[in-house]
Amino acid sequence: MSEALAGGAVKEIPPKSADLSAWYTAVCLRAQLVSYSPVRGCVVLRPYGFGLWENLQRELDGRFKATGHENAYFPLLIPESLLIREAEHVEGFAPEVAWVTQGGSEELTERLAIRPTSEAMVGTMYAQWIESYRDLPILINQWANVVRWEKATRPFLRTMEFLWQEGHTAHKSAQEAREETLRILDLYREFAENVAALPVYSGRKSASERFPGAVETFSIEALMPDGKALQSGTSHDLGQNFARAYDIKFTDADQAVKYVHTTSWGISWRMLGAIIMAHGDDRGLRIPPKLAPTQAVFVPIVRSGDERAVEVCNRLARILADAGLRVRVDARDEKPGWKYSEWDLRGVPVRIEIGPRDVDAQTAVLARRDRNKDESGQRQTVAVTEIEAALRELLVEIQASLYSQARSFLQSHTIAVADQNEFFDLCSTRAGMIDIAWCERAECEAEVKRQTMATTRVLRELQEGDVRCTACGEPAKARAYFAQSY
Amino acid sequence: MSEALAGGAVKEIPPKSADLSAWYTAVCLRAQLVSYSPVRGCVVLRPYGFGLWENLQRELDGRFKATGHENAYFPLLIPESLLIREAEHVEGFAPEVAWVTQGGSEELTERLAIRPTSEAMVGTMYAQWIESYRDLPILINQWANVVRWEKATRPFLRTMEFLWQEGHTAHKSAQEAREETLRILDLYREFAENVAALPVYSGRKSASERFPGAVETFSIEALMPDGKALQSGTSHDLGQNFARAYDIKFTDADQAVKYVHTTSWGISWRMLGAIIMAHGDDRGLRIPPKLAPTQAVFVPIVRSGDERAVEVCNRLARILADAGLRVRVDARDEKPGWKYSEWDLRGVPVRIEIGPRDVDAQTAVLARRDRNKDESGQRQTVAVTEIEAALRELLVEIQASLYSQARSFLQSHTIAVADQNEFFDLCSTRAGMIDIAWCERAECEAEVKRQTMATTRVLRELQEGDVRCTACGEPAKARAYFAQSY
Repeated sequence: MSEALAGGAVKEIPPKSADLSAWYTAVCLRAQLVSYSPVRGCVVLRPYGFGLWENLQRELDGRFKATGHENAYFPLLIPESLLIREAEHVEGFAPEVAWVTQGGSEELTERLAIRPTSEAMVGTMYAQWIESYRDLPILINQWANVVRWEKATRPFLRTMEFLWQEGHTAHKSAQEAREETLRILDLYREFAENVAALPVYSGRKSASERFPGAVETFSIEALMPDGKALQSGTSHDLGQNFARAYDIKFTDADQAVKYVHTTSWGISWRMLGAIIMAHGDDRGLRIPPKLAPTQAVFVPIVRSGDERAVEVCNRLARILADAGLRVRVDARDEKPGWKYSEWDLRGVPVRIEIGPRDVDAQTAVLARRDRNKDESGQRQTVAVTEIEAALRELLVEIQASLYSQARSFLQSHTIAVADQNEFFDLCSTRAGMIDIAWCERAECEAEVKRQTMATTRVLRELQEGDVRCTACGEPAKARAYFAQSY
Repeated sequence: MSEALAGGAVKEIPPKSADLSAWYTAVCLRAQLVSYSPVRGCVVLRPYGFGLWENLQRELDGRFKATGHENAYFPLLIPESLLIREAEHVEGFAPEVAWVTQGGSEELTERLAIRPTSEAMVGTMYAQWIESYRDLPILINQWANVVRWEKATRPFLRTMEFLWQEGHTAHKSAQEAREETLRILDLYREFAENVAALPVYSGRKSASERFPGAVETFSIEALMPDGKALQSGTSHDLGQNFARAYDIKFTDADQAVKYVHTTSWGISWRMLGAIIMAHGDDRGLRIPPKLAPTQAVFVPIVRSGDERAVEVCNRLARILADAGLRVRVDARDEKPGWKYSEWDLRGVPVRIEIGPRDVDAQTAVLARRDRNKDESGQRQTVAVTEIEAALRELLVEIQASLYSQARSFLQSHTIAVADQNEFFDLCSTRAGMIDIAWCERAECEAEVKRQTMATTRVLRELQEGDVRCTACGEPAKARAYFAQSY
């Protein structure tokens, strides 16, 4: 317990339902996930927030490695002349770049960009590394910090510097690159659902929502409680655009020299923002057990100087930790109710209470964070000999219940419409993911955005009977989810 | 095997004994640990090098957590006004700072430093977080990239951007802070010896070698084959210097408001440079098994179309991987001898050869990288049923043998002298760690440096009979190891 906890009692947070934005900021700060820093647009990821990020990293990293990817590290600083080689790419990112112009006392002859993303640097290195078809595919991922100049700050959702992973792969053929792009999209979807307990829609983006320089961008999109979508991961098929700009060529088996096909894909700490917003409640965070830095917190209850519960908690915590569970004991000199509120706020999935009577009976009380006090099954008493099994079962149940609640929300807020007026109304009022037959025209999307602030989130194949675009009446080309977004 | 390997045969590397510097650079590049990047002073850590770094991270991170530390992440950019608060600190680092002066199209009113180290940022946050003695100690570590403006580039040893970990702790008392400083110093020593197989001298630095702003700096120092020392980890007792500069105060149990005592400590990817230089030989890298990205490589030998060995290798590799060993199969269409050279160059501790006759006999040949071809026991034939046990035993032996070779070198190149002329000679000729009674005067150290390029590495207590400084004849105050250094 080296981590500094908020002094004094946990201050009230505004109810989530009343003001999501105020609730979100208050929870991020008071649960000690982040602090604002003295640098505009930058937050500090505190130990509790970093614990969440480490668990996300471990889960994603294992999936990347299981699919043949390796980690590497590329330089932070990118010379301007390299960054500008891909025209669309630089146009998209230039307004967001932080520039280094001085080193020590020296004025640089060429500005260095702090990477907003690494396609330029990775492409330059791939051009050096790749000679033959035998060198392909290259499947590399990088865990790194990036900087994009931003005025506003919202923890995780919008920060000038953020942590992410960026995958960069090179392939022999367009087909292989597309397969990789979709493999990662599906990996992201599976991670979101099974680890983050977030149901998402995954699919391709419209042309206007594409990554600068990509042939096709795909994403996973989660729905937040205010009816706004949150793009939580993207996977780009870059075709040969970057191969041409950075001269990444290989000699194929037929001796012909060809450009490679590249992909890139990323998930950032934005995903933590989605998790916080989707699962939290009026009492604070509810963290999915697979990502929780602390899966269970022991609260020993000391009465009239009987401190036996502390020893029992410490002993059980050691046993559970040895069994691979993430537990801690809160033996601070504070009232139990105060501690309950604090760990509720911080979203620990299970609280384990042990008092003098439990010590006598060799029992413990397990309280689950995903249910409210008045709900049945919120607390259960188990024999200490059964505690590991009971806790494991409860963690699985809580993981499933958070997912199921989020899925119900997404389903009940996904609305297929065929009427134009209804469509514009639903978009304006942030009713959720509004599912229509769509023309795929940029002008149509711009008009919907102008009137309602909603844009396409992801597209999918037309369904039988789709003839006209619900938004504008032109011929339909795809189904699209429209929503306002973060 | 997605990683691109060097096309064609492994090119020759210069013999290590003939030209350590040329050997070092050639090995770093040809073993695919790093590539030079298009940014001056920056290298790319390629997958094989990153694998080494990941293993180092895992080993150190586990030790930090076991001693109560937690990870966090602080912003990359530090406003100039914050950086300059601690006078000695800024004086030490200002010449090495890369400055951001533009964000998007905006000229900044205040320059932002890319962190050369994070005391300024961490101190600012600790001042916000710490109120009461109950909040102490704070024990935080950060894995991060830092930038220090450098002209020269030597992979791992001297690069403008590098990866490291930096620990930052705050304590109630001077004694606690000093205990933490020494706890980490010992953790670093234990890691160097038991994981990196590097024997080191650990102790306090002289005043002139102190971290800017520290009350006392301690370090671990390894000896390289050219007789130069390599500082491989540092631990600083910062006293109340940073607490005063950043106003980090707490209310103690006695209600008095006091400044905290802080420490900081770090190991960077420089440690990888020490490992490469200390253990390598004329054939290339020799990586300690505990850090090796690949602990054993299978080379199936295919003769006259008999490909059974490939299947056997794949099957055995799966079994060993499931048992937690890091193995790979090299089934490329190349001659076995070519592969042997390549994996020797890349320092894989054990090579496992399986040919048609081994398939028939259900055996495998294990060849150890730490011995030469003509040494007894370099190769052994084992039954495939015994392969896991045999490999594990061999990895333990190789780890121990690398350490023992490095320790013999350090011991035979540690020379205690009492004669002034001999001392200056040994320092000039880079004879190793030259151990003398020393006066601790900065003037004396400067004079030794002027004449021989050697400086003090670490100091320890005087021994019986030490009266005069060997270097200058003034009264002795400590024993010191002198050496030229990287």
